[in-house]
Amino acid sequence: MRVGIGQFNAHVGAIERNRDRMLELMAEARARGCDLVVFPELAICGYSPLDGMWRPGYAETCEAAVDALRAASDGIGVVVGSITAHERREPINRHDLSALADSAEVDLRNTAILIEDGKILGRASKIHLPCYDVYDESRYFSPGPGIEVFAFRGTTIGLNVCEDLWVDGGPAELQASLGAEWIVNISASPFYVGKPEIRRRLIRRRAKENDVGIVYANLIGGQDEAVFDGGSFIVGSDGDLLFEAPLFTEGLFVVDLAHAAPVPSDEDNDLEQLRSALVLGIRDYVRKNGFTSVIIGLSGGIDSALVTALAVEALGPEHVTAVYLPSRYSAEQSGADARRLADRIGIELLEIPVAEAHDVLRRALPEAPEGLVDENLQPRIRATIWMGLANQRDALVLCAGNKSEIATGYSTLYGDTTGALAPIADLYKSDVYRLAASFGDRMPQSILERPPTAELRPDQRDEDDLPPYEELDPLLRYIIDENRSRQELIAMGFDAALVVRVLARYRASEYKRRQLPPGIKVTPKAFGLGRRVPITNAYTG
Amino acid sequence: MRVGIGQFNAHVGAIERNRDRMLELMAEARARGCDLVVFPELAICGYSPLDGMWRPGYAETCEAAVDALRAASDGIGVVVGSITAHERREPINRHDLSALADSAEVDLRNTAILIEDGKILGRASKIHLPCYDVYDESRYFSPGPGIEVFAFRGTTIGLNVCEDLWVDGGPAELQASLGAEWIVNISASPFYVGKPEIRRRLIRRRAKENDVGIVYANLIGGQDEAVFDGGSFIVGSDGDLLFEAPLFTEGLFVVDLAHAAPVPSDEDNDLEQLRSALVLGIRDYVRKNGFTSVIIGLSGGIDSALVTALAVEALGPEHVTAVYLPSRYSAEQSGADARRLADRIGIELLEIPVAEAHDVLRRALPEAPEGLVDENLQPRIRATIWMGLANQRDALVLCAGNKSEIATGYSTLYGDTTGALAPIADLYKSDVYRLAASFGDRMPQSILERPPTAELRPDQRDEDDLPPYEELDPLLRYIIDENRSRQELIAMGFDAALVVRVLARYRASEYKRRQLPPGIKVTPKAFGLGRRVPITNAYTG
Repeated sequence: MRVGIGQFNAHVGAIERNRDRMLELMAEARARGCDLVVFPELAICGYSPLDGMWRPGYAETCEAAVDALRAASDGIGVVVGSITAHERREPINRHDLSALADSAEVDLRNTAILIEDGKILGRASKIHLPCYDVYDESRYFSPGPGIEVFAFRGTTIGLNVCEDLWVDGGPAELQASLGAEWIVNISASPFYVGKPEIRRRLIRRRAKENDVGIVYANLIGGQDEAVFDGGSFIVGSDGDLLFEAPLFTEGLFVVDLAHAAPVPSDEDNDLEQLRSALVLGIRDYVRKNGFTSVIIGLSGGIDSALVTALAVEALGPEHVTAVYLPSRYSAEQSGADARRLADRIGIELLEIPVAEAHDVLRRALPEAPEGLVDENLQPRIRATIWMGLANQRDALVLCAGNKSEIATGYSTLYGDTTGALAPIADLYKSDVYRLAASFGDRMPQSILERPPTAELRPDQRDEDDLPPYEELDPLLRYIIDENRSRQELIAMGFDAALVVRVLARYRASEYKRRQLPPGIKVTPKAFGLGRRVPITNAYTG
Repeated sequence: MRVGIGQFNAHVGAIERNRDRMLELMAEARARGCDLVVFPELAICGYSPLDGMWRPGYAETCEAAVDALRAASDGIGVVVGSITAHERREPINRHDLSALADSAEVDLRNTAILIEDGKILGRASKIHLPCYDVYDESRYFSPGPGIEVFAFRGTTIGLNVCEDLWVDGGPAELQASLGAEWIVNISASPFYVGKPEIRRRLIRRRAKENDVGIVYANLIGGQDEAVFDGGSFIVGSDGDLLFEAPLFTEGLFVVDLAHAAPVPSDEDNDLEQLRSALVLGIRDYVRKNGFTSVIIGLSGGIDSALVTALAVEALGPEHVTAVYLPSRYSAEQSGADARRLADRIGIELLEIPVAEAHDVLRRALPEAPEGLVDENLQPRIRATIWMGLANQRDALVLCAGNKSEIATGYSTLYGDTTGALAPIADLYKSDVYRLAASFGDRMPQSILERPPTAELRPDQRDEDDLPPYEELDPLLRYIIDENRSRQELIAMGFDAALVVRVLARYRASEYKRRQLPPGIKVTPKAFGLGRRVPITNAYTG
């Protein structure tokens, strides 16, 4: 059997456009002699429409698009993911108006559909609905009612959807025992650093466990916080990797299952994957929202330098405007570094001093501002200028906040937290350095070497307010990524006073995180939709 | 049986403080001769700890607090809601690090616990876990494994938790058939306008359906977006209301079930309930977060006037500072109205002109700002001053945005959207008028009568940019609260061009809503955690 994996960049809600692109890929698959072309989970509508799928006509529009694929399936098989509507069976709260407002008239399912020669051969709805991190699938979907296999061109196929293959004892087990030779799993599995290898390891293990081949088709593309990295692959029943599609690349990838031989797995390069994920995340966020250009406040520091370099890779230098807004505390070096970077990557740099605006706002306050109050005026003036420029140029502002800052609240809300997207919000400061260094000559050495400073008061350094990042970042990783307690951290050898201070900053800055722009998720635990913590919260453990 | 309902204001995460307050209420109940005191759902930790409940030691701390109640239960029965930890049985994704990061080592349940004389008599874990609106209970909890009844002082009791009574065919049915004479339902049911009556109607119906009495104990208090209104009650097996606790009032309410006679239901006053909900929501947000005072930008318009009046009721006039920041476009009347209001409600009013700052920022932009660009400078300058004052006075900024503005994006992000809390974010403009008028003489007539204006350009009126609110608000109610489609709205008689324009504004402003402060939910469908819409979303239906 010749299989084409349509590793597809779906645009959420652009159902007709997604349909048309898949029709093109189907035509290409037919021309390349495929028996079957496989599109990812919810390829029809993109992942995830979230509450948008409750808008009237959404499921019907999806079903009409599936029907268009069906009508065009002469001589070729198609597996595609869509929302499907079914007669309601789920128990539902018919009394609370909030429940009714969130309710379709029908049960919706997250379904893989097998089509051939104008006919629907079978459907398999997702059984294990993920409800963790960014996933709220129980909010939207009812679980599939059963497990089947389907005959397709002399082969027995078991269809399942994403999480079904991740949960131990999922439907593949029964499908294999029902005679499936191939499991076709369609996924919308978002990226984080390390995920491609986790997926490969999991799927190879599932193949061996169940003595069944697996075709794994994953979405690519950026969707708000999520980046789908593609990296679809095919594994034989002995767990051998038979094919691996490139990461972060859209296209049709064709494999003849009968003649596929084991291939070595791609060498994972975390830094390269991280960079590709951020570039795709920026590009898709900007373009899918109808923009082409961005404004970045370039401070001379490493965070904004990295965001600028990533944006240039995503959008081209002609679509990136950097703005350097020196205050009275900005060092000569800051401007020089900003100019050096802009020069090396070939972008426009605007320079606008903010000291006068700072003076006027200082005088506006009835009592003369001191300390933090005075410091915070400056980033808010800068944000006002960024937003004005963005309005004038029909561009989006990119925010340069990193995960270490966001975790500790080391930022000025409505100031440096401003933007439509925060591309490096999920990178600790130490990752910011590593990734910035990967830009080689384009990233001025002086930016990489300078001690971090917010430059909001004379001779300020981040280390005056925060522990050095070499100490802070490991601690934050344990707190955020591993959810360790104060006692555990102290037992691990971290200084008790430091632990208490960092945990207190972390808790106290929840209100800021609630108002941040979306960041691009590149770790298992990012701030944003996948992490829900109350602002009002007295627990200190 | 003499029952005390502990209508309790739990503070999320303040487990020891919650425990101590419940111990006080237990002592009071014992002194007043109660057989049983009933505390609401998750009274131990407050509703909802969200991801906070995964912090190490959370469930253990809850169980220790339950144990303290148990130890103090000599001679009295207690029903209390807590998180309980159980050996893991739920299928779980052990392969994705994001799933593991969100996972406790155990299955957690949302449990009602019956205690007497130092012993746990029984437990009933919530079976129907709500996954709609603000609720993500499948993210946190496993459903209870079974349905039981318990003997308590000669009576048979069925315990269940909140949603269990809302879903048709819930556990009360089986509990009644197992001989329960009384159902004790513990709830954390948040307020919206009309909810108290919906609850009463539902519970009376459940009592009659199952021929069983129901003791319904609800939480009170504000928690970020949610306000719990209390209004606990008791219904006889014929559906008669036997007792109703006041709304928005903490306390122990004692009823002798054997001698309770039907009482008339309280007359619902929507406006009074709305006002009480907002006042409690403001007070608890401010105080539970460790503040006492707020700053409000008073524009002379009705939105900020209403927020100011509500804040004075919540916190006292000595804890409210209003700031009037006239720009070059502010009318004489605006200042006069701001002064009049401040005078009538007895609060401090600061006046700071912003024209100079506006000029400086205008000149800072490389191209002279016009139109929206120029307009947006002013609210961002104001926000910078509000935040500076808030920093100086250790106060929170309250945001005056209303639901009509937020729905249409008629606001300046990082400007008038700024604040720690947006108390009237769930009130359409027409509700703002109705509620403001309820303040009588304290609300100047001129504020109530003046046509709405943002005063960001000469002679501006909201109606220059938006349809009149009498047209806009009904349309928005259909779009947001009833989720109607373009076609349906046009079929209902709304002007087609208006529908298209309003829907386009609504969709295009999603990115702003993502960065708003929390608003207080007072309708079935509020913006915020209970409404999850992608920013990147091409669906226009």
